[in-house]
Amino acid sequence: MFQTFESHASPEQGPGRLAALRAELARRGLAGFLVPRADAHQGEYVAARDERLQWLTGFTGSAGFCIVLPDLAGVFIDGRYRTQVKAQVDLGHFTPVPWPEVKAGDWLRDHLATGVVGFDPWLHTADEIARIRAALEGTAVTLAAVENVVDAIWPDQPAPPAGRVFVHPDSLAGDSHAAKRSRLAAELRAAGERAAVLTLPDSLCWLLNIRGADVPRNPVVHGFAILADDGTVALFSDPAKFDDAVRAHLGPEVTLAGPEAFLPALLALIGPVRVDKTTAPLAVSEELRGRGIEVRWGDDPCRLPKAKKTAAEIAGMRAAHLRDGAAVVEFLCWLDREAPGTLTETQVVRALEGFRRATNALHDISFDTICGSGPNGAIMHYRVTDQTDRALQTDELLLVDSGAQFADGTTDITRTVALGDPGAEARECFTRVLRGMIAISRARWPVGLSGRDLDPLARYPLWVTGRDFDHGTGHGVGAFLSVHEGPQRISRLSEVPLEPGMILSNEPGYYREGAFGIRLENLIVVQEAAPLGDNRRQLSFETLTFVPFDRRLILVEQLSAEERSWLDDYHAEVLATIGPRVSGAVADWLTAACAPL
Amino acid sequence: MFQTFESHASPEQGPGRLAALRAELARRGLAGFLVPRADAHQGEYVAARDERLQWLTGFTGSAGFCIVLPDLAGVFIDGRYRTQVKAQVDLGHFTPVPWPEVKAGDWLRDHLATGVVGFDPWLHTADEIARIRAALEGTAVTLAAVENVVDAIWPDQPAPPAGRVFVHPDSLAGDSHAAKRSRLAAELRAAGERAAVLTLPDSLCWLLNIRGADVPRNPVVHGFAILADDGTVALFSDPAKFDDAVRAHLGPEVTLAGPEAFLPALLALIGPVRVDKTTAPLAVSEELRGRGIEVRWGDDPCRLPKAKKTAAEIAGMRAAHLRDGAAVVEFLCWLDREAPGTLTETQVVRALEGFRRATNALHDISFDTICGSGPNGAIMHYRVTDQTDRALQTDELLLVDSGAQFADGTTDITRTVALGDPGAEARECFTRVLRGMIAISRARWPVGLSGRDLDPLARYPLWVTGRDFDHGTGHGVGAFLSVHEGPQRISRLSEVPLEPGMILSNEPGYYREGAFGIRLENLIVVQEAAPLGDNRRQLSFETLTFVPFDRRLILVEQLSAEERSWLDDYHAEVLATIGPRVSGAVADWLTAACAPL
Repeated sequence: MFQTFESHASPEQGPGRLAALRAELARRGLAGFLVPRADAHQGEYVAARDERLQWLTGFTGSAGFCIVLPDLAGVFIDGRYRTQVKAQVDLGHFTPVPWPEVKAGDWLRDHLATGVVGFDPWLHTADEIARIRAALEGTAVTLAAVENVVDAIWPDQPAPPAGRVFVHPDSLAGDSHAAKRSRLAAELRAAGERAAVLTLPDSLCWLLNIRGADVPRNPVVHGFAILADDGTVALFSDPAKFDDAVRAHLGPEVTLAGPEAFLPALLALIGPVRVDKTTAPLAVSEELRGRGIEVRWGDDPCRLPKAKKTAAEIAGMRAAHLRDGAAVVEFLCWLDREAPGTLTETQVVRALEGFRRATNALHDISFDTICGSGPNGAIMHYRVTDQTDRALQTDELLLVDSGAQFADGTTDITRTVALGDPGAEARECFTRVLRGMIAISRARWPVGLSGRDLDPLARYPLWVTGRDFDHGTGHGVGAFLSVHEGPQRISRLSEVPLEPGMILSNEPGYYREGAFGIRLENLIVVQEAAPLGDNRRQLSFETLTFVPFDRRLILVEQLSAEERSWLDDYHAEVLATIGPRVSGAVADWLTAACAPL
Repeated sequence: MFQTFESHASPEQGPGRLAALRAELARRGLAGFLVPRADAHQGEYVAARDERLQWLTGFTGSAGFCIVLPDLAGVFIDGRYRTQVKAQVDLGHFTPVPWPEVKAGDWLRDHLATGVVGFDPWLHTADEIARIRAALEGTAVTLAAVENVVDAIWPDQPAPPAGRVFVHPDSLAGDSHAAKRSRLAAELRAAGERAAVLTLPDSLCWLLNIRGADVPRNPVVHGFAILADDGTVALFSDPAKFDDAVRAHLGPEVTLAGPEAFLPALLALIGPVRVDKTTAPLAVSEELRGRGIEVRWGDDPCRLPKAKKTAAEIAGMRAAHLRDGAAVVEFLCWLDREAPGTLTETQVVRALEGFRRATNALHDISFDTICGSGPNGAIMHYRVTDQTDRALQTDELLLVDSGAQFADGTTDITRTVALGDPGAEARECFTRVLRGMIAISRARWPVGLSGRDLDPLARYPLWVTGRDFDHGTGHGVGAFLSVHEGPQRISRLSEVPLEPGMILSNEPGYYREGAFGIRLENLIVVQEAAPLGDNRRQLSFETLTFVPFDRRLILVEQLSAEERSWLDDYHAEVLATIGPRVSGAVADWLTAACAPL
């Protein structure tokens, strides 16, 4: 079992650790310290060693930070965690701060008159520190890069992760690392840059066709790398993680050294050096500049090519989705046959992981399954624990958002199903969410548009009834990499043009606090649209996910002829592709679930 | 009759005038000269005196420019005028250049090795000249502000317009000019600016509650003004245009002087002075800077408040649209009763203007009616002339885009009607355009979105069939002012947040070259949306235009339940509001046209 149901919340340990931190701050003459959730690689999952925010405060959310001052410790949490934070931190010692509404710099200006606030320059990006410093201009408060203060007082801090690295075969990547390095090197030369610094684990893994096990859920290798304009790569990561087969795969043009060799190598570079100020630790650019080496801000060169999947990656994603679709269909059939009241959320999660394990191909789940019944469905990033576990009841909705990591691809799917009769209101909202999802699925659009331009299409059916959902419509997805990857997104904030090969989620939702939650999610890949009409060049989506939608929740008369036709076609394709992979009662269940509306 | 059907094209006079211009350039030692369509006020309509581009080249379009070089004269025209330009200029002497694909600066760099290119700094904005200069960097070609070379060789150039100015009553404006001046002055003081320069005629007219007759179609006054931070205004416009009643209305805080007094007044200012670099002539900022007066780039302070109509302006627009709607209904009924083949396009235009004149309230038409039958409908900005006039034929579409200027409001409406049976393809496309128009009409959206965010909703029904239209979905509309006004737009290019009171057109279309054109247009006003659903704060549109859509062209089975219900409700409202304003056969026609689908 990959997923666990423990609650790591330990509000009772926070006050003592906070006192120790303040004593250390006083010893160093600091007025405060920033404790981020992020590690040096800015990923969504961090290693145990990097769980500084949780260790100090008790808060286990996947984003946020704490600012410790002599008399105040603010825990900055976004909308998803407003309720959770209250249960996880000692409110007598920590003060939740709504973020990003309240920004770190503004909060510091309001709560500290004078003094030096320390931060670890390996845990913050240049952009992040620049924003805080801008807000502090004209005050007597300054920020200073210091040795990490939490690490200094954390006696049993775990060691860095040492997950085994393995080769991601060229046949699945669709491209050799030599070819990728050579193309990116040409791009650096064209830009007049001598090297680029890589700090994102999925960039390293994509570029070198390797995978690892340094954090849960994402099969990535922690490390840093320097890509030179001749196409060679100097990789800095614990050599113990790399066996002979991996070393042979990397070959002579990729050198390997321990993390301690990264800084000396950086300082030996000749500029200009490209650094991504939105993802690289501030330390990288500061150290380069301190040595007089020219830094050029620019995108991590792997980010965009990684997002545009090769034909082999898309083929792998298709295969992964058929395998995963069959497992999810088995799960939905099983769920339907269990009497309401006999199952709890954790049992549902266990069962789903079991069906995925039965594929004999499951490398990991791609994130902790969100399984919210009734009112728990309205908690957008609900992770069930033994404490919050709830029995499924009749006449309510169950939302299950889950995914798998297979060697050939990453999946992410959400279905919302009826337990008994959840009522007219639930069906009305479900139908509108479904119509938004269909609008994105059916979209064709002129080349050059970004996710921002498509986002309203998913919301319109809800908007016209005074409803909306407070998350993006879709995120980028990696190929046997992070289930959340950039830069592609379907979101009001995304100006990145959509390009063929980009894989995204399509997941509109609707949430009524205290009552129910609905989300419907397929993965989709951008493709050149087939010629049609005036033969203008257009892009469209191919759907990767094949699992039926719960017909008991669809108000058929509200669908347009085209929406109904899309859904019937989709269900027919689900039956044609998943049908041969299931048998017996499951096949019967699938046939019924996929019948025309 | 306001509209005329003459063709002003005179290709035969171009070569002689071009030769004279080149002789004058040689005399002045210039290698070239820019001849824009624009006047000093950057409006869509220009006075006869400012028709320099047409006088020189023969081209009569509403946008474009000519660059005259010793051996080449490029006429820059956008997609709307690619065909027209070929008929209007002597192609042996003038070379059409596709614009904005080819930019002035790039073209100059490619076609001129060295020399000074002159331009009239009163006819170009600072932004425009800066862009050309940027493209010429590193070349031996420079731009220089000079006295207008066309004016020097145009023997019978008309005098500046001298249209009578009249008062636009406070009861229609909903606000006094004293109150507006005082609010804008407070804004200048808050920004630390001592004055703002106003060069847009509709800004002057809005601010001072006056209207005029200096150009056709738009009831504006040509002039410049300086708004001081104490709320006083110095207006520079031919005093002969202002009678005692208007002078009394302006009062002592608005001084009036001739245009020749503008420059001295400008040079006597104390900075900082706000200048809009996107609309003010370059001469304004250059003259100020030449005298050492600080220029601050900023928006024309009238633009945004002018766009957000007052309750009185919206009430006036509603009244104007009911009056206009009745006239258009009379027209459509008349058109339906005429046998195909008996009418030509000019006769249709004459008849429509006649119905509007019969309201006894028509001040002007708001633009030259676009009346395109059959293939002429596909020419997006078709203005019928005696040369292009065409008999309406049976089994085709007729597109009529027209509008009126009334004292209480400006209208702009497009309807596309069937003459006989135009076929299944026309009905399919008509229905998709209609669905796009309905999507915008029904929209509700979170506060803060711009026209860009709504634009895809109007295109989606066409996109999914491989179709699109090559113009924005909507433009801003003034209240008894310009029928095209900024900054609000529904367009991929518009990032201006939509705000209550903004009036826009909603006009998706579809055009098949050589075959037919479809456009459907209502005016709409942004409003706070009525509470609904989760009571999130949303905006929505109120529709101002009430004229039925041709039911013979609607494929009812393609509409969703909500689209059909919107259309039935709309037609019921048309009948309820316009019905009492027509009688006899027209009333019968309207009743049938507005019956539920």
